[in-house]
Formats: sequence, structure tokens, C-alpha cells
Amino acid sequence: MKNLAILGSTGSIGRSALAVVDAHPSRLRLVALAAGDNAALLAEQCRRYRPAVAALATPAAVDRLRAACPDADLRVDAGPEGLTAVATHPDVDIVLCASSGTAGLEAVLAAIEAGKTIALANKEVLVMAGELVMEAARRHGVAVLPVDSEHNAIHQCLHGRNHQEVRRIILTASGGPFRQFTSDELEHVTPEAALRHPTWRMGRKITIDSATLMNKGLEVIEARWLFDAQADQIDVVIHPQSIVHSMVELIDGSVIAQLGVTDMRLPIQYACSYPERWEAALPSLDLTRAGKLEFHAPDTSRFPCLALAYRALRDGGTLPVVLNAANEVAVEVFLEGRLAFPAIPRLIEMTMNAHASQRVSTLAVVRAVDEWARGQARELARELELTF
Amino acid sequence: MKNLAILGSTGSIGRSALAVVDAHPSRLRLVALAAGDNAALLAEQCRRYRPAVAALATPAAVDRLRAACPDADLRVDAGPEGLTAVATHPDVDIVLCASSGTAGLEAVLAAIEAGKTIALANKEVLVMAGELVMEAARRHGVAVLPVDSEHNAIHQCLHGRNHQEVRRIILTASGGPFRQFTSDELEHVTPEAALRHPTWRMGRKITIDSATLMNKGLEVIEARWLFDAQADQIDVVIHPQSIVHSMVELIDGSVIAQLGVTDMRLPIQYACSYPERWEAALPSLDLTRAGKLEFHAPDTSRFPCLALAYRALRDGGTLPVVLNAANEVAVEVFLEGRLAFPAIPRLIEMTMNAHASQRVSTLAVVRAVDEWARGQARELARELELTF
Repeated sequence: MKNLAILGSTGSIGRSALAVVDAHPSRLRLVALAAGDNAALLAEQCRRYRPAVAALATPAAVDRLRAACPDADLRVDAGPEGLTAVATHPDVDIVLCASSGTAGLEAVLAAIEAGKTIALANKEVLVMAGELVMEAARRHGVAVLPVDSEHNAIHQCLHGRNHQEVRRIILTASGGPFRQFTSDELEHVTPEAALRHPTWRMGRKITIDSATLMNKGLEVIEARWLFDAQADQIDVVIHPQSIVHSMVELIDGSVIAQLGVTDMRLPIQYACSYPERWEAALPSLDLTRAGKLEFHAPDTSRFPCLALAYRALRDGGTLPVVLNAANEVAVEVFLEGRLAFPAIPRLIEMTMNAHASQRVSTLAVVRAVDEWARGQARELARELELTF
Repeated sequence: MKNLAILGSTGSIGRSALAVVDAHPSRLRLVALAAGDNAALLAEQCRRYRPAVAALATPAAVDRLRAACPDADLRVDAGPEGLTAVATHPDVDIVLCASSGTAGLEAVLAAIEAGKTIALANKEVLVMAGELVMEAARRHGVAVLPVDSEHNAIHQCLHGRNHQEVRRIILTASGGPFRQFTSDELEHVTPEAALRHPTWRMGRKITIDSATLMNKGLEVIEARWLFDAQADQIDVVIHPQSIVHSMVELIDGSVIAQLGVTDMRLPIQYACSYPERWEAALPSLDLTRAGKLEFHAPDTSRFPCLALAYRALRDGGTLPVVLNAANEVAVEVFLEGRLAFPAIPRLIEMTMNAHASQRVSTLAVVRAVDEWARGQARELARELELTF
């Protein structure tokens, strides 16, 4: 029996994780749950799974949970301390980090220091603090298992192989809904159009990241840390069918790929079961009904976000923090209808150009640069804003 | 340094194996070579690689080798004893069995008993005597590593995983040159047309087997023995591009695939290097230039050989021996222009129907049934022969 903590239990990944727990009641037990603001759903989850500890982002949300779930045995905390309490509860074996944004950073580091296995579904943790997190994981002998479909695929492809056998990591990308748009058409993309992802159903932020290819850029940076790979060992290939979830090329030219249906329960269960593998009642992949599988090179002139991510990764230091923060601001402003779609990479690049990169020596440095970059990006956004 | 014996060094696989030896002079040393009748090429190989022992099928061929290569230090033997001497030479670590047909059977068993690692490129060994061979390998703690591109791919996909994690083995098949032919068109297929394989360059027999799908049928039987899988755990999918070399479906629905360029040096080197993996100077697979990958279900009404192979596997005993022998006769008669293409499976089926299956208890049983089936098939072939 493995004891599970979920950071972000009310989100899309969190709810899929609960389905995995439901499918394996004799193997997984929920002992700790954290969410942001959705007290009503968290209360429902607490009544059902009876965790020992729960957390929400604000004291007001905690009050709502308390009112909806007056369980005297349930400890509930608020804010970052609450998140850390959930992630480090003594009974917890695995922490699934599926909280969005940067909130989970301290909690994940605390969980690593407490010796918990990390199942990571949050991109920011490694994009912002990859070196700190992986160094802590090495020091504490803790596994960081990727839940992102692509990195999970790579983990499966690498299983049983040595680091020296790997020539190249090949991340697949759906290419997003505008894969075949001209530069001109991209100028007129609306938030509504960008929110319609062709193959995966996800949150708003990640769907836009998927349309700009920034999602893949962030994944390149994650892959660098998860698999100790160099920037020039990580390639991206557009694969609109999203059936090949990613690949690894080995030193003899052999390519190992992981394929599957697009269902997040698969990578979540893999991370929970590893190094074992458990059966799942998901439909099998039927390649004869999948149609043709295509692979194209990404076009970084129409989708510059990917090139910006490589630049951030190569230049290193705090530049990925700036990339991530500026991207969050850009997506926000775009979703408000105040920024043209191609201005997203422009805003990120301007913010990066304004930054003097430094070493990521502590989380405090990360936090400070993150804050600076958001301010800088908001300011620069005004220059690029659409006039109505 | 690993010491290598090659059974079938003058054939297509054998020559690719020599290229692998050339590429890794500090890792592989040739110590024993065997060929069938091609004394001239074997003499050339002996002069170049200076093995300790060599063998040819007949005393006449041995005389020709002696004349062309008067090396006093080289021991040369003829016939089955020669093959066994090559396969069991005390210095040999790995025996690459790439001889065609059934000649290698005794030599492979002798090599297993002598504790040699087996790199297997010959289908007949497992189709005819899979149970005997794998049982001997278990008893002697010997690895049987597949060199066939498909089984090699599956071996790579299974590496590091438990037998209990495997739900299904999925062999890919090019579908051969007549994949899209109607039953009517298949009636008029000539040997010349059948010898033009779309993706792999191989010998005549295996090229026809590829066109009838019998090659895949034999591979299904091989997979049963190599990976201890049941018939209903082995599927075949038509994949005309031959880029995905085969796949494994795991119990959670995840599919692991091996992809690569179509170059036999890759699986040969893998078998020689295993459990290590060595770099290779082969071109990388570029999926963005590979075009679209397609997958179709095989049509056993137009290509009944595949269904016959499943029947032989399910019924077991000596029936796979009959399948293989009748197929060899059928292909021979077809290549002589005396049998219509669709009569190949008909002839095999008639021979199978005439057989009372028994347990494969010894190689003698295998040899006796093989001989019976060839005689029976030749007789039945006369009934099906084309009239000119």
C-alpha cells in the first residue's frame, strides 16, 4: 500500500489521480489533499477519501471547507504552510504535485527533503528551479517521476537503460490548433480559437501554451533536468495525432517510443506504481483505427516560443524563470483580448532581453526574479497592447 | 572482447555481421565461420579475419576452400559436424546463427549445451524445435537473442520489464508487394513480381514468405518461444513503411515500440553487444522525412498463410514443423513457375490436414516429420501444379 498526497486535487490532473486511486483501492491510499480555492469540491473529496490533512490557498477557503466538512479528525491549513504540511505529512510516500503555477515550489522541495517520492505534473517546478530540485532529489535519494505525458513516455523508454546509451530525447508536440496557419492568419487568432486544442483537454493556460508551442519549450527545459540531458540532445517533432507520446534515440540509432491513448490516468498510474506496473482498465490503443501518424519539424519562425525556450535553457541561470513568468503574463493579457497572438513571444523576448541572468542559488533568487519578470512583462505588455 | 562464430557468414545476414565486426574491432573478434557452398567468399573471409575454424556443407566445397586459402592454422570441416565444430569452438562466446533452412538445428542445440550465447537470425530453429531449444537454453542458462528485426525490436521493448507486465506482442509486417491486390490479381502473381519486396532486401525464400505473409506467421511462432507468450497474446499489424519494427503492449495499456532505419547491422550489433549497447555509425532515423506511418489489420482471407501459422501454433506439437516444411516446398515449386501464388497456402493447408501431430520430444522426431512433410507436400504439389 502506498500513501498518496495530491497537491491540486480539484484540478484536471488531481481528479484523474483520484480515478487512479479508485481503480486501485488495495494499492493506493489518499492521506493528504491540497487545492487552491475550490473548497466545495475539496470538501466533497475529503468526505469521500477521509485524508488526515488538507490545505487550501486562503483562510477564507479553509473556513468554507470547515463549514462543508466538519470532520474533527481532519487537519486543515491555509497558504504555503498548508501546502507544505500536505506534502510532508509523515504518512505520505508519494507526493503528486499537480498544483498549477509556482505555488508548489517550496512544498515540493520540502517533500524531497522529507524523503517523499515526487510524481511531478507541474512544469514550473523544474523550469524555475530544476537545478535546485534535482540536486535536492539526488542528495536525499528521492525519485522525481514525471506525470506529463511526454516525459512520462520518455521515462518509460529509458527504463532499464543507462544514461550513456542515450543519444537524443525526442519530444512530440501536437502542434496546436494553428499548426498550419500562416503568419498572417496567426495575427488574427482569438482567445476562443486558441482554447480549442485538437487532441488533449486541458486547462486554459496550458492550452494557449500548446498553441504557441511554449508548452513544448517548457517541456524541453523540464527534460533537461529530469533526464540530465543537454539542450542539443533534446529535439521536438510535431506529431498532430498525439499517439506517440515521445521517443528516445539510443547511441546505436535505435529509437524507443511510447504510444498510448490520450488519457492522463495512464502516466499518473505509472508514476504511482513505479517501479512496478499495474494493470489498467483503459481501452487499448488500436493503431489500425488510429489513422496515419505524421511527423513534421517545428517551424520556429511562426512559433518563436520554442526557440525562446531553447535560448533560455542554453543561457541558463535565471533566464528560464524569466521565460516562464513573462509567458504567464503574456498568456493572461492575450486571454483578456489585449494582446495579439504573435505578440506573446514578442513580449517574452523583450522581457528576456531586459534581464541580466544570474545563478539559481536559492529559491529566494527564483522568487525575486519571478516577481521582477512579471512586473517587467506587465509594463512591456502595455507597449504591445491592442488598441480597440 | 567477445569472440564470435557465424553460421552462414557468406549470406546477407552473415555479411552484415562482418560489417559489425569491422566497426567494433576492439569489441568483437571472429573465431569461427561456416557457410554452405560459397567456398570462394568464405576463403576471402578466412584470409581477412583469420578464424581458428571454418566449415562448409560438403567435402568438395572444403577442398575448394583449402585450395583458395592454404592456411595451415585453419581447421576446416564439412557437413553438420563442421557446423557443430564452428558453433562449439571453445573460444566462442556468441554464435550468430544465420544459416538458412534447417541445417543449423543441431549446431544451435550443441552451442547451447556448450554454454554459448545464441544470436538467432534463423527462423526454422524455433519454428521447428522451439520447445526443445528454449528448454535447453533455460537448462544451460544461455541467452537466445533475436536478430530478426521484429523480434529484436520486441527484445528491446521488453528490456528491463517483467514478463507479468506484458499484455500483448505486436509484430509489424510490411504486408509485402501484394498488400493491395485483389484475390483475382493474386492468382496471376509471377515469381518475378513476388521477388520485389517493398522495404527490405533479402534472400529469395524470405521475400516470397514476405509476400504470402508466411514470414510473419513463422515470426508469430518464433515470438511464442522467444518471449514465452501465448498465441492470443501475439498480434500482427500491417505497417507498409517498416519503420516501427515491432511493439509491446503492457498491462496498463501503454505501448512501447522500437523504430529505426531498415538496416540489419542494427539488430546484429544489438545481439552482439547485449546487455550493453554500442554506438553505431548508421544514419539516424528522421521521422520528419519518413512520411506518414500507416497501420492496417492483416487480411487472412487474401493471405491465409498467417492464419495457417496461428493454427499450427495453437494446435502445437509437430504441426509447425509441417507448416514450415510444406511452405518451403510450396515456395520452391512457386519459384519454378509451377504453382500459382494462392496455391502456396492451399498446398500448406493440405499437407497440414494430412498430418497427425505428435509431441516434439527429440530432434529425431522433428527431422522425421520434416522429411515426411516435404515428401507429402511434393506429392500434393503435383495435384495443384499449373498446366502449361
